Amino acid sequence: MKRTSRDIRTANRYGVLRQIIARSPTSRQELAAATGLSLATVSTLVGELLDLGMLTEVGFEDSAGGRPRGLVAVNAPGGALIGVDIAETYVRVELFDLALTVLARADEDMRPGENRPEQVVAHVAAAVGSVVTQAGVEGARVLGVGVSVPGQVDRARGVSEYAPNWDWHDVPLLDLLAGHIAYPLYLDNPLRACAVAELWFGAARGRDDAVVVNLGTGVGAGLALGGGLHRGVSNSAGEWGHTTLVLDGRLCHCGNHGCVETYVGAPGIMQNLRELSPRSTLLHPEDQTATIDALARGVAAQDPVALKVVRDTARYLGAGIADLVNLLNPEVVVLSSWVAVALGEPLLAEVREAVGRHALRRPYAATEIVLSPIPTDPVCLGAAAFVLEGALQRVGQRPAARTAPARSRTAPPS
Amino acid sequence: MKRTSRDIRTANRYGVLRQIIARSPTSRQELAAATGLSLATVSTLVGELLDLGMLTEVGFEDSAGGRPRGLVAVNAPGGALIGVDIAETYVRVELFDLALTVLARADEDMRPGENRPEQVVAHVAAAVGSVVTQAGVEGARVLGVGVSVPGQVDRARGVSEYAPNWDWHDVPLLDLLAGHIAYPLYLDNPLRACAVAELWFGAARGRDDAVVVNLGTGVGAGLALGGGLHRGVSNSAGEWGHTTLVLDGRLCHCGNHGCVETYVGAPGIMQNLRELSPRSTLLHPEDQTATIDALARGVAAQDPVALKVVRDTARYLGAGIADLVNLLNPEVVVLSSWVAVALGEPLLAEVREAVGRHALRRPYAATEIVLSPIPTDPVCLGAAAFVLEGALQRVGQRPAARTAPARSRTAPPS
Repeated sequence: MKRTSRDIRTANRYGVLRQIIARSPTSRQELAAATGLSLATVSTLVGELLDLGMLTEVGFEDSAGGRPRGLVAVNAPGGALIGVDIAETYVRVELFDLALTVLARADEDMRPGENRPEQVVAHVAAAVGSVVTQAGVEGARVLGVGVSVPGQVDRARGVSEYAPNWDWHDVPLLDLLAGHIAYPLYLDNPLRACAVAELWFGAARGRDDAVVVNLGTGVGAGLALGGGLHRGVSNSAGEWGHTTLVLDGRLCHCGNHGCVETYVGAPGIMQNLRELSPRSTLLHPEDQTATIDALARGVAAQDPVALKVVRDTARYLGAGIADLVNLLNPEVVVLSSWVAVALGEPLLAEVREAVGRHALRRPYAATEIVLSPIPTDPVCLGAAAFVLEGALQRVGQRPAARTAPARSRTAPPS
Repeated sequence: MKRTSRDIRTANRYGVLRQIIARSPTSRQELAAATGLSLATVSTLVGELLDLGMLTEVGFEDSAGGRPRGLVAVNAPGGALIGVDIAETYVRVELFDLALTVLARADEDMRPGENRPEQVVAHVAAAVGSVVTQAGVEGARVLGVGVSVPGQVDRARGVSEYAPNWDWHDVPLLDLLAGHIAYPLYLDNPLRACAVAELWFGAARGRDDAVVVNLGTGVGAGLALGGGLHRGVSNSAGEWGHTTLVLDGRLCHCGNHGCVETYVGAPGIMQNLRELSPRSTLLHPEDQTATIDALARGVAAQDPVALKVVRDTARYLGAGIADLVNLLNPEVVVLSSWVAVALGEPLLAEVREAVGRHALRRPYAATEIVLSPIPTDPVCLGAAAFVLEGALQRVGQRPAARTAPARSRTAPPS
């Protein structure tokens, strides 16, 4: 009941800009056709984005017999967006122009145990400073910094409520970062960053209902329903990794047994390998990345153990993704994150088959299952998209939106 | 991207009318406070509903020091709504006034095997005729007939795509009904009817995200997300009964193994009883209703077998509902349908505890789990609500909306 016509205008602004980013230059007429909005609405929204300096007029195209149509394109240098991916072992920061091209990147390794909030904040601040310097953009052009941190997040307060791998509880991360970073800050987690990246720039763009399945150390499912992120009442929706696949099955660190994550997260895949072949040379007991990479090479070389592990994993994944298909009836399921990238097409083929065995026929027939088409780090990209959403949400609220952003933490986009 | 300001106005109209039905008489000021809409918006929407004859002015109340405030109430006799619950063994039809009071009811039993579409249609037509006659309402006052049929439904075409218990495939049910019934017709299934009943009149009213868990012969979860029904890309979202709880577990009629439904649907509960105590006198092998009623009486009498069966069932239910809590992070989970009614508070208490053992702590803390507060047949009520939504959606599209409805099938509400 709290949805207003302001929310609609914001959502329409997102839709129009998404379309222009996907295809520049374009005309208002093409935008109206692609978004389903009226030409009048599109013209108004394009006008706002031109005023903000996010778009630029780039000439005219002939229209058969009619007046020439004005073409608009993203004004790539009109602003800069910074996305921060805080992971367990590293901090990665990327700076984007408004066409979402990466202009600069900085990586900071974190040593095991180096995970006190001040240490993490220092790494983020250093990397943010580095990308701004590398890219040579004026501070006034930086629209903000989107920060992704693992675990449960209170985005309105800017607090990391719970990060299981670091045992963080209620860390006021944005307040700590604001001591070092003068740009508007936005906080969320990798699950939602990846979902927003797909909504803006990937396989969920223009789809009403999409599920973005993140396959990494942990696993989860970002829910893009009705064209927007479904967050739930306390911003924790998407914990598919902690749904039960095998009642009384493997113990999960969440305390439950048989969670999806214990079978298809990277440590779960290592366990699948261990159960099949305890002494396999594919197994690097202390190194998830090395093990997954070894499996990927093994599959390419038709190694029977590697093939069997991927098939077993796909069977678990297939049952778990079938649950999402039956429950949510999405148009598309996107496999994202590093395990999906590493195992790629061979995993996808097995997963498609396994979902078909478990799901109901009609919703399965209505769902595409694809690998994420995003070629760069989806977490940084999604974190940058949070900044873009924040800027678009503030349109009309602050008449001087073209000038430097406020030097403080802003209200998060909804 | 297809959401328009018309959709918003329709949603706001729903919200205002829901609030007035919940609390009549009321003032525009109270409505604005309860819905979060501006007083100007509320006044416009109330004006529309007055023009339609759905509301009526009922006097004034003093406001401290200010002008007296006009009070509005539902105009109960201003229209009639008919809800049809087609079940496996019976057809129930209820006729409601606009305050959603039941004015007349007709039940038709269907004998086993009596399930050809023409036979079902004849029962529905007879019962609809009966309630209109009983209630003595003019045909012109009937806003429409909402029809719920089990299984998968194409509501836009009015087709029952698949009803597993009858082996119906692509039955053009609304076209068949339109040969007998002259009112606007709306088709959907019991899962979504129950969810809409809770949204309009029950525990989901005013909540952003609610899950309505239907516990009957089959089980499912109606998803009321963002204040509206989540239908999915082919209107089949909510098939929670066919998510996997026990990989390689009990065989389900859908072809998968270990589906939630095989453990907590009425036949699944009978199986739980059989596994615990094969010769129990609680078991009525051919009669689900008698068995569930016997279990309910057994629990009331502290029968140890009945207590254990309910606890075992709650354990399965708890894990399955924890999946919904973790994945969707809802504000409320509502237990609905006849098994939930029969087993009531003792089941609820066990379920709450079991969900707490399986769910993540934070989303669990943010979720209430309740029994449906709806005292009548929620399927008939929800089917009637589809008619109400259809009528509200057409406001402004047809200037003569106050006159008799078109004598043909109308476009479904979205």
